Amino acid sequence: MVAKKTIFSTPQDAEAAFYDAIERADLDALMAVWAEDEEIVCIQPGGPRMTGYANVREVWRRIFETGQRFVISMSQPVVLQGMLVTVHSLCEQVSLRGGSAEQTAPLVATNVYVRGAHGWRLLVHHASPAPPEAASENPKTLH
Amino acid sequence: MVAKKTIFSTPQDAEAAFYDAIERADLDALMAVWAEDEEIVCIQPGGPRMTGYANVREVWRRIFETGQRFVISMSQPVVLQGMLVTVHSLCEQVSLRGGSAEQTAPLVATNVYVRGAHGWRLLVHHASPAPPEAASENPKTLH
Repeated sequence: MVAKKTIFSTPQDAEAAFYDAIERADLDALMAVWAEDEEIVCIQPGGPRMTGYANVREVWRRIFETGQRFVISMSQPVVLQGMLVTVHSLCEQVSLRGGSAEQTAPLVATNVYVRGAHGWRLLVHHASPAPPEAASENPKTLH
Repeated sequence: MVAKKTIFSTPQDAEAAFYDAIERADLDALMAVWAEDEEIVCIQPGGPRMTGYANVREVWRRIFETGQRFVISMSQPVVLQGMLVTVHSLCEQVSLRGGSAEQTAPLVATNVYVRGAHGWRLLVHHASPAPPEAASENPKTLH
């Protein structure tokens, strides 16, 4: 379990902790990745926009409560790395643990990280459905 | 028509020009809002992730070419305003011009703006479908 005071020295560290916590359905570890002193925003695929730490925590609690466990693979990152704000654009393949290949859903995600007193934290996670054929028409990795 | 060298002195100016250009189907004005020296990212609702100026221009050209014209209203902005990077989270209602109320689609959008030599420009536009009932479960305007 990740303690509340975990310091993520890079946005990449925060992102790795975020997806690891989702795969392990570890709510405390997941919420430790989010910024606490900003208005955080979380959009699940096809879901409503959730804002605020308590609301975001509740939506993930409900997801984990279902007992479904996810396996997420990311690809084709586009990164804008700034001094205080970093944006990651990712293509994701999300599948249920033990599920068949047909149950894999392609998503696109925009993750925004901010640097504060406790290192880099997640500010915005916006994930949405992508076409099944190709999550990205023109894959590139830059920056 | 907005000239290429238009300077947007705030992210809000860039955002207003962006949605105005969509409503007028003005491709040159639309593309003038995007950053040119960064790897831009554009995700249409349910569509693939497009990266790069030329690809983003082409996807909007095709949309405008259909002849459909949109009316977009934004609400419930959540803004993280930084010195060099600003993030806007918006709820959108998009309808076809002259269309009925039933043809209105609720969306959520994440727009990332960067400040460069020519003022603020759009770096990321990520729009995706939201539930019809409420685009946001907990509307707030902060910052």
